Amino acid sequence: MRPVYLDNNATTRVDPAVYEAMRPLFMDQFGNPSSKHGYGAAVSVAMKKARQQVQALIGAEFDDEIAFTSGGTESNNAAILSALGVMPQRTEIVTSAVEHPSVLTLCEHLEKTCGLKVHKIPVDGRGRLDVDAYEAALTTNVAIVSIMWANNETGTIFPAAELAESAKEVGALFHTDAVQAVGKLPIHLKSTAIDMLSLSGHKLHGPKGIGALYVKRGVHFRSLIKGGHQERNRRAGTENTPGIVGLGKAAELAMKFMDEDSKLIKSLRDRLECGLIQRIPDAFVTGDPLDRLSNTTNIAFENVEADGLLLLLDREGIACSSGSACGCGSQELSHVLEAMNVASSAAQGAIRFSLSRDNSGLDIDRVLEVVPALVAKLRDPFPACTGYGDGI
Amino acid sequence: MRPVYLDNNATTRVDPAVYEAMRPLFMDQFGNPSSKHGYGAAVSVAMKKARQQVQALIGAEFDDEIAFTSGGTESNNAAILSALGVMPQRTEIVTSAVEHPSVLTLCEHLEKTCGLKVHKIPVDGRGRLDVDAYEAALTTNVAIVSIMWANNETGTIFPAAELAESAKEVGALFHTDAVQAVGKLPIHLKSTAIDMLSLSGHKLHGPKGIGALYVKRGVHFRSLIKGGHQERNRRAGTENTPGIVGLGKAAELAMKFMDEDSKLIKSLRDRLECGLIQRIPDAFVTGDPLDRLSNTTNIAFENVEADGLLLLLDREGIACSSGSACGCGSQELSHVLEAMNVASSAAQGAIRFSLSRDNSGLDIDRVLEVVPALVAKLRDPFPACTGYGDGI
Repeated sequence: MRPVYLDNNATTRVDPAVYEAMRPLFMDQFGNPSSKHGYGAAVSVAMKKARQQVQALIGAEFDDEIAFTSGGTESNNAAILSALGVMPQRTEIVTSAVEHPSVLTLCEHLEKTCGLKVHKIPVDGRGRLDVDAYEAALTTNVAIVSIMWANNETGTIFPAAELAESAKEVGALFHTDAVQAVGKLPIHLKSTAIDMLSLSGHKLHGPKGIGALYVKRGVHFRSLIKGGHQERNRRAGTENTPGIVGLGKAAELAMKFMDEDSKLIKSLRDRLECGLIQRIPDAFVTGDPLDRLSNTTNIAFENVEADGLLLLLDREGIACSSGSACGCGSQELSHVLEAMNVASSAAQGAIRFSLSRDNSGLDIDRVLEVVPALVAKLRDPFPACTGYGDGI
Repeated sequence: MRPVYLDNNATTRVDPAVYEAMRPLFMDQFGNPSSKHGYGAAVSVAMKKARQQVQALIGAEFDDEIAFTSGGTESNNAAILSALGVMPQRTEIVTSAVEHPSVLTLCEHLEKTCGLKVHKIPVDGRGRLDVDAYEAALTTNVAIVSIMWANNETGTIFPAAELAESAKEVGALFHTDAVQAVGKLPIHLKSTAIDMLSLSGHKLHGPKGIGALYVKRGVHFRSLIKGGHQERNRRAGTENTPGIVGLGKAAELAMKFMDEDSKLIKSLRDRLECGLIQRIPDAFVTGDPLDRLSNTTNIAFENVEADGLLLLLDREGIACSSGSACGCGSQELSHVLEAMNVASSAAQGAIRFSLSRDNSGLDIDRVLEVVPALVAKLRDPFPACTGYGDGI
């Protein structure tokens, strides 16, 4: 049975070239970059290169605008808490109703424990931000706006650069969780008013346990994790040097192949999406059909339990997901689809298929072959016996 | 020239067996452990095993007392901030004057910004904690005690288990930064009153970017990094699965070889230490000669600039350090030696040699051959010409 992995928004396979780049850092160039001797110096050079590779991918003006962290969640936490720390006189946060748990959970915690006011800007039925509500929430009370670049569940893209311009007008800092966008969309930060941006290695064929926070030069910053002077005092702790080098290589590869990959991935995604919609009644795509990541489709199958479908797909060797992996464990419906007002009969049967450059047309063929029958099976609670030995 | 690495308290080389254990997690078992499909399940099994390996190394009662973090610095920050969060009515912290920057910098920040009172317990000339001062500082105002198990610069060991008993009497939580102790000393947490303990992968031949925080069952805990439900809500963010598996393997190896390794390492360290003291006048060992990590020696060479000596040693391929790698960048004297009242003429020439199981007798031979001449050279600002071509 050919395994099919279509859960690339949850995590991606490390690219062999990324792995090769990391390899020497474990046993040969294993020094602590803060050390003054040759073992430290060798690794510092490798880190510098990685910083420049990430800089290039997101179009930052300077490489020292990149601070390496342990991942997207830490970057998001660090950005929001820093803004509140440097602007204590401002007591409001603006975010959206469809953010990743690393933003929403933190905001809810701050609302509860620190009395901050959090504006969760709603989205429409396609997952698009209500820009009027956003503009109305922006006042000089707002310390930080944290709005994602692209949604992890539906792929809907928000106009981050434009939203940042509005935030700037009221003197609020603008942060974007770009974990799903970086490596999939061209990003040129230096020409935007975006102050901070989070990215994660394992979403772009880099390793887990590494990410970065872009902090534009001139933006005051307070570190979340305190200690040594690493990362120009922006993130204490011995640097994860293999992870950093791996992220750098992943950024280089993403940049090199972005145009070509995204065209190919889009054609596969479109074939998958159209194929399923054509073959399966009462199924529809959620998310914005226009401004959407080219690798993502979130399809709601009416009157199906997503968990049941995922289980059957897993038995067939097909991996995809409902909602965010980070929300797993709860039986609740996706907060993203809920914010989009997707009817619960549809939202409960929503499946996210997320592709990457590791996928091929054979993967799509297999999904198109398997999924329609499984959906039909789940929709019919009393299937007729089709022959001897079937049924009970 | 044979390179000699004697800076193992800064970081260690990844053990080849650790590397082998991590390898499949990059490109084969690359799933997100929160995913419900087979890719997720496979990694969850590997993580469970790693948790048990760490549990065994530190003698914890339950494997769910281990939460994986990005390293020692994050663990230290998380422990202290959690205690303050769960006991807001208590406004004092007790720590020592010789802690790692990840504890001291955080405490100083909290003192400055939140008005908390921080007691920095002094040490004596051998780096031993002033236990009377410690007992005197313990009141019901204290939320948390954070005192290291073993000092990174001198190797001096503190009686963590006993200190925890006293903290318990006043209802304060007891945390220990055991980054330098874990893997070098036998630790049996379940029979102690220690509530939280930090450890780091890269100090025990595991990878960088991974660590753990032990939180005893029943201790209330608030996560530092908020988001998904990973690590039983104690640390949000997609788990660094290769790092976790690597740390687990490193823990297993440390446990397996601890007895044998520490005897061998101690004999090498003692030969190095005695050899240098015998060969070099006006040199003495700092730290406690009795309760000291068997891999560490910190030797003060009077009237020598440590930075100059480190540079010359580096040219000879010998890597060691002055103070903590994390304090690098500043020209200040070691805060540890300062707290021990080591005269500045000696402290400025203090060098830490820290061994591991990667070292052999040949490394010691080489250091004993090279260091005495270099110290003599640095002490004599006008060396006599010893022959044609020398001098200017």
